[in-house]
Amino acid sequence: MTALTVEARDGAARTGTLSTAHGMVRTPAFMPVGTHATVKSLDPDEVRACGADILLCNAYHLALRPGVDLIERAGGLHSFMGWDGPILTDSGGFQLVSLRRVATVDEDGATFVSPYDGNRLRVTPEEAVSIQARLDSDIVMCLDQPVAWGSDSAAVAAASRRTHRWAERSAMVHPGDGRLLFGICQGGFEAEARVASARAIAALDFDGVAVGGLSVGEPLATMEAMTAASVAQLPPDRPRYFMGLGTDSELLAMVGLGIDMFDCVAPTRLARSGAAMTPDGRLSLRRAAYRDDLRPLVEGCRCPACARFSRAYLRHLFVAGEILAHRLLSLHNVTHVSALMAAARAAIRAGRLGTLRAEAEARLRNRPDGGDAVDDELAPPRAQRVGASRIPGTLGSRG
Amino acid sequence: MTALTVEARDGAARTGTLSTAHGMVRTPAFMPVGTHATVKSLDPDEVRACGADILLCNAYHLALRPGVDLIERAGGLHSFMGWDGPILTDSGGFQLVSLRRVATVDEDGATFVSPYDGNRLRVTPEEAVSIQARLDSDIVMCLDQPVAWGSDSAAVAAASRRTHRWAERSAMVHPGDGRLLFGICQGGFEAEARVASARAIAALDFDGVAVGGLSVGEPLATMEAMTAASVAQLPPDRPRYFMGLGTDSELLAMVGLGIDMFDCVAPTRLARSGAAMTPDGRLSLRRAAYRDDLRPLVEGCRCPACARFSRAYLRHLFVAGEILAHRLLSLHNVTHVSALMAAARAAIRAGRLGTLRAEAEARLRNRPDGGDAVDDELAPPRAQRVGASRIPGTLGSRG
Repeated sequence: MTALTVEARDGAARTGTLSTAHGMVRTPAFMPVGTHATVKSLDPDEVRACGADILLCNAYHLALRPGVDLIERAGGLHSFMGWDGPILTDSGGFQLVSLRRVATVDEDGATFVSPYDGNRLRVTPEEAVSIQARLDSDIVMCLDQPVAWGSDSAAVAAASRRTHRWAERSAMVHPGDGRLLFGICQGGFEAEARVASARAIAALDFDGVAVGGLSVGEPLATMEAMTAASVAQLPPDRPRYFMGLGTDSELLAMVGLGIDMFDCVAPTRLARSGAAMTPDGRLSLRRAAYRDDLRPLVEGCRCPACARFSRAYLRHLFVAGEILAHRLLSLHNVTHVSALMAAARAAIRAGRLGTLRAEAEARLRNRPDGGDAVDDELAPPRAQRVGASRIPGTLGSRG
Repeated sequence: MTALTVEARDGAARTGTLSTAHGMVRTPAFMPVGTHATVKSLDPDEVRACGADILLCNAYHLALRPGVDLIERAGGLHSFMGWDGPILTDSGGFQLVSLRRVATVDEDGATFVSPYDGNRLRVTPEEAVSIQARLDSDIVMCLDQPVAWGSDSAAVAAASRRTHRWAERSAMVHPGDGRLLFGICQGGFEAEARVASARAIAALDFDGVAVGGLSVGEPLATMEAMTAASVAQLPPDRPRYFMGLGTDSELLAMVGLGIDMFDCVAPTRLARSGAAMTPDGRLSLRRAAYRDDLRPLVEGCRCPACARFSRAYLRHLFVAGEILAHRLLSLHNVTHVSALMAAARAAIRAGRLGTLRAEAEARLRNRPDGGDAVDDELAPPRAQRVGASRIPGTLGSRG
């Protein structure tokens, strides 16, 4: 039995519905990132209103702070953070790369040193599953070992083999209770290794499979080739999740290759830097051109920022270091990516995903405002350090 | 004709309705402060839902940034910031005290040096009125010259006399168009001077009168005595506004003396420091005691933070530096002060304001949690510097 119902296809792309213990997810789906059990600056009703069906939290960060015991006592993550929809939790595998200085890895698992209190957190593949189950995650991710872009093939091969052994151990402790357990395939940046890793993970009959270890700095062509090589080996009836992506172009390209789920911190992180995501590319409120611009960020956008406020007002809030700037831009950006997914779903049903991609690319090439250059007026950055985590890992594109 | 309809009295206290060009204000009223055309972290719908009928913006800050021209072109402050209710604008008088290093004052007016670009802003009493009218303010405040707590009586007398001369000039340029123009009485910290100043301002037939120059560090007894001395000289049919207050005790004391309107940055500033205002006094989320506390901030509170989230979750957000902490605490605190005003209005109608005050004082004396002591766990403060203005003046209690 599979949790994914594919309802339409267009080439390799597909659209459908993923069932979880906390409700349905329309795919392809974008998951806003709520690393610390909050999508930065937004409340749960706003996340839903932006068009998101599911969000992502990070088990590693939450296990360190506020701790699994508290969240379990609070009735699980949904109750703790006031979100009653589906939640996917990442395992901490990404932090083995992004937090190399405070993480060590051995065959049995990973050891993290807490940046908050210096305590050690030991996580084995089995414990990663158990922690996520105790958090009441709907989609539990296996502990994996990604590698950095530029690693040599021996390091890639060793990490992939360890990821497979960890995946086998994870599959043995499937949490049940209606939770979905997703494997993660690796394989670095060579097609042959990608194929081998995807086959190894596919053999373990997970409820879904993530393509991991990409969007870490490699060229788009490499990303596409590696994703295509992975997807070809994955069971067609299981959901596929590309971890940590990305721009509109990248997202549509991966939808075209048959990916069903995405996550990225970009919408909320760009908001903090005063940037709006638009069909014409990024619009930076740091540009002086917007000082007197009484138009909305994007004409016709249904988000609360565009419905009610002007670029001039939003720029004023940003320049004044006001929190509302971060919040309104986050609402806009999460709405933008969710709307992109909705457009992709509709295009797949209509058999015109290729047209959608071509139109999107054409708009990006013909930017009406000459691109995203930032003026000097605000340099050095005076944006508030809102919500800035002191953990380097949260700056990675994977939650 | 007066804009205030007094509907019930209880001793010197009164409750009623103030009519403005953008709607009614139930008095006694608390005005959340939106210095830079935003109540920090909240959107206009939230400000309304907290129970606020009117908010305060600061003409001085807005004239410097983003500038009066832009706001006028945007259709005025209401349109610019998306708030269709009444707005009172402060004139910049307070900044003559709080920004002494960048402000100079002479008989004809005040000169400020912009902290943003070094430009000079010259404001005469006439220009203060005209700037506020161009911002589309509903309640325009005269330019005044307050004095700091501890000033000698010669300095107090000179500033009061200048305030009176400026008030005469302001009254000559009443903006009309349904806008209300409020005078401000001063007089320092001696009853005789307070009486004289209130008489001078009362003689000018303003639409309302503010008691200025208090809540600047003087003891509560002095504040009460000075307010009583001022109020006794003011026209009973005009609204009275105490600028920049305060704690629950102070607010109820001033309601008891016949004040109709208040403003204060405390609800949103306390939120930034992790403090909730409660009927039992301040609750600081910095205390480790709240780490595992799954109760709401205040049992029975109707604000969104209390309806949905626990102290443990809010503390987690605060400790993690998440913006949502500031926002939920701001929602709670503005709701708290608005609810206090609603309780005062009901108590006045029922002729039991004295009982309300006695009950409130008793609760504050018998704090169930032993007070507001902050534990060491989070020292030095790790709260995010969200929305922190670089202008020292915005740290004053008057917007």
